[in-house]
Amino acid sequence: MIAGAMGVAAGSTGAAAEPLSDPPWSLAFGETLPALQTPSRYEKNVVRSLSNPNGEFRNSHARTPHHLLYGTITPNSLHFSINHCGVPDIDPAQHKLVIHGKVRQPLEFTLDTLSRYPLTSRMHFVECAGNSAPMFSSEPIQATTQAIHGLVSNSEWTGVPLSVLLDEAGIDPAAKWLIAEGADAQFLDRSVPIKKAYDDAMVAIYQNGEHLMPGNGYPMRLLVPGYQGNMNVKFLRRIKVIDQQPAYTYFETKNYSQVLPGGKTWRFHFLMEVKSFITHPSFGHTLKEPGFYTVSGVAYSGTGRIAKVMVSADGGKSWGQAALQGPVHEKAFTRFSMPWRWDGQPAVLQSRAWDEAGNVQPLRAEFVAARGQTRQPMTNPLLFPNQHYNSITSWGIDSKGGIKHVYA
Amino acid sequence: MIAGAMGVAAGSTGAAAEPLSDPPWSLAFGETLPALQTPSRYEKNVVRSLSNPNGEFRNSHARTPHHLLYGTITPNSLHFSINHCGVPDIDPAQHKLVIHGKVRQPLEFTLDTLSRYPLTSRMHFVECAGNSAPMFSSEPIQATTQAIHGLVSNSEWTGVPLSVLLDEAGIDPAAKWLIAEGADAQFLDRSVPIKKAYDDAMVAIYQNGEHLMPGNGYPMRLLVPGYQGNMNVKFLRRIKVIDQQPAYTYFETKNYSQVLPGGKTWRFHFLMEVKSFITHPSFGHTLKEPGFYTVSGVAYSGTGRIAKVMVSADGGKSWGQAALQGPVHEKAFTRFSMPWRWDGQPAVLQSRAWDEAGNVQPLRAEFVAARGQTRQPMTNPLLFPNQHYNSITSWGIDSKGGIKHVYA
Repeated sequence: MIAGAMGVAAGSTGAAAEPLSDPPWSLAFGETLPALQTPSRYEKNVVRSLSNPNGEFRNSHARTPHHLLYGTITPNSLHFSINHCGVPDIDPAQHKLVIHGKVRQPLEFTLDTLSRYPLTSRMHFVECAGNSAPMFSSEPIQATTQAIHGLVSNSEWTGVPLSVLLDEAGIDPAAKWLIAEGADAQFLDRSVPIKKAYDDAMVAIYQNGEHLMPGNGYPMRLLVPGYQGNMNVKFLRRIKVIDQQPAYTYFETKNYSQVLPGGKTWRFHFLMEVKSFITHPSFGHTLKEPGFYTVSGVAYSGTGRIAKVMVSADGGKSWGQAALQGPVHEKAFTRFSMPWRWDGQPAVLQSRAWDEAGNVQPLRAEFVAARGQTRQPMTNPLLFPNQHYNSITSWGIDSKGGIKHVYA
Repeated sequence: MIAGAMGVAAGSTGAAAEPLSDPPWSLAFGETLPALQTPSRYEKNVVRSLSNPNGEFRNSHARTPHHLLYGTITPNSLHFSINHCGVPDIDPAQHKLVIHGKVRQPLEFTLDTLSRYPLTSRMHFVECAGNSAPMFSSEPIQATTQAIHGLVSNSEWTGVPLSVLLDEAGIDPAAKWLIAEGADAQFLDRSVPIKKAYDDAMVAIYQNGEHLMPGNGYPMRLLVPGYQGNMNVKFLRRIKVIDQQPAYTYFETKNYSQVLPGGKTWRFHFLMEVKSFITHPSFGHTLKEPGFYTVSGVAYSGTGRIAKVMVSADGGKSWGQAALQGPVHEKAFTRFSMPWRWDGQPAVLQSRAWDEAGNVQPLRAEFVAARGQTRQPMTNPLLFPNQHYNSITSWGIDSKGGIKHVYA
């Protein structure tokens, strides 16, 4: 009997076909089913990595372990989360969402009243503007996709279209912006164009079939698909319709502005650009032997659907078109894959994505020329470019099957 | 300010528009992010119900709380599970899948070697043949959708197409069946037509993005989309290609055969028929006041896509076509919804689904005439019809908004 891998004999085994040997778990009555199922104890390393595990009075990041996941959905337990002042413990029976400002009649909603509306479900990624910040480093940082790209995740979100609620409140036709405010201890607030509110925004109350997890905005959050993560205001308690100008809140003028070479910054730059990265194989994995492998990863764009992903195994000299796992959703993870036979020689794996609007992931040299990079160590990250990285990630394979992060 | 629900004033509140009152969770630094996120403590009733919570030496059921979920995906923590002898605690580094029997070369796979193949992801429901067994009762049992229909769930499954593995092993062209066997303590085994194996079967290794949960077959299971749940053999350790005839195992001749009126039984009846049920509102909910509500539920068919769902609020006298949440996947949950204004009078809510092949959910009278029903209490459930129920579920609303299970 040989071990199978697309015709590659990965080593014959001593196991006879009959009878099969019986492992210990086949010889005893098994464990009791729990009310809430959890992963196998053999998967205990499949967890989010935490930037502030002791809950110090500063911001906290929990990153998704993309190198250990597959498919397109991020389980709720592993969805990334960033909180600037911890996760509020909200009683949904007490929480209210107010819609007011330039409206005909102010309205107040509870989780219960929102649940009576026709709800819509859509697959969407949410990505922090600061995801992939380590890629601005002038030297490639040796870290997993979790550490580098772990601030993006993908879920089926279910909620009420925001347009329905705004229409019910009757907004002033001259109003161009709204302010969305959360019930966390800093009342994180962001300005959102009314146009986006009427395009595809929703007030989400379910995530992958169940109510939102606390770190993702329980009991309700704004969802503005394709816009930077913090605009998808969690613990949503207020939507205030305002005038011709945005509110210039702290989070849109300082914290979530992007520094450009020369010191200028982008403000009110909402869109998360087309992007992809290879999750399998990637840093943290090892190729045990030459032979057949599948190169796979995720691609997404805040503009719409992914149209094409190209994959290279030679650092960008030659490219082949990857297969896309359908159905391809708008503003959602699309998994791509490409069969690859590793000959045991050094190789550099890359992916590059295009969206349906024709946007393409920039090559690293192009990206760095336009957006800058940062010598390590950084003294104050806020003074350096650290947001909206969407260029290419390269995984260098050495002749022993080891994997390093490289720039190529 | 009035509470909003599609223009229905659900009661004005004393809350002033400005300033908003600040609840306690907005006035303190919040909780620390955990490595594995879990639901809010306010959602502690959103769990599976267990038929054997103390792990006695008999079978166990864990049922999905459909009346508390929304969207189309069942979170892994809440996916239903049935185990005849507990859940084996399998070490994936030791577990092997053997493909042998009438093949050119027997093959042996590990989770690691399977992971090197091109993996495919698809949304599919899995349903126990005995799901909805309480509906065979001659009197409507007063219970939630969880208790009645909780043995069906829906996930994104990722795995290797079984056809790829069979082709690599080189099966005898004359073989018509295979036996799939699990590594649980009873080696649950079922015969599967080779034709189905080549149609859309896979060896699944991920569920909703992460490795399978233990109760759903960790580290690998067979997935035969649309076929009864137990054929999707969990803890898959063997696929043996056999001859012209199925194996007549215990699970296909006795345990999973359907008794018909007169005592005849169906054997090798694999397909889970077109079906739907309303989850919102349903038993366990209360309508607090007349006004606008959304009637919603899930529909699915083992044959293919759902084509249409009709909803009635008057016990089947009149019907309206429900909206289907897209994209509509093959052999997967499709959520339907219908706006409904409750006038405070008694009502009976029903749903009825059609699939793309033209199959329709039978009316209850038709179904009972063909398949029988059972007076309660049953002395021995195995002697009575208790499988493949796919007729209509009716929720009776009384004038106070209370909800009962009725036959109509």
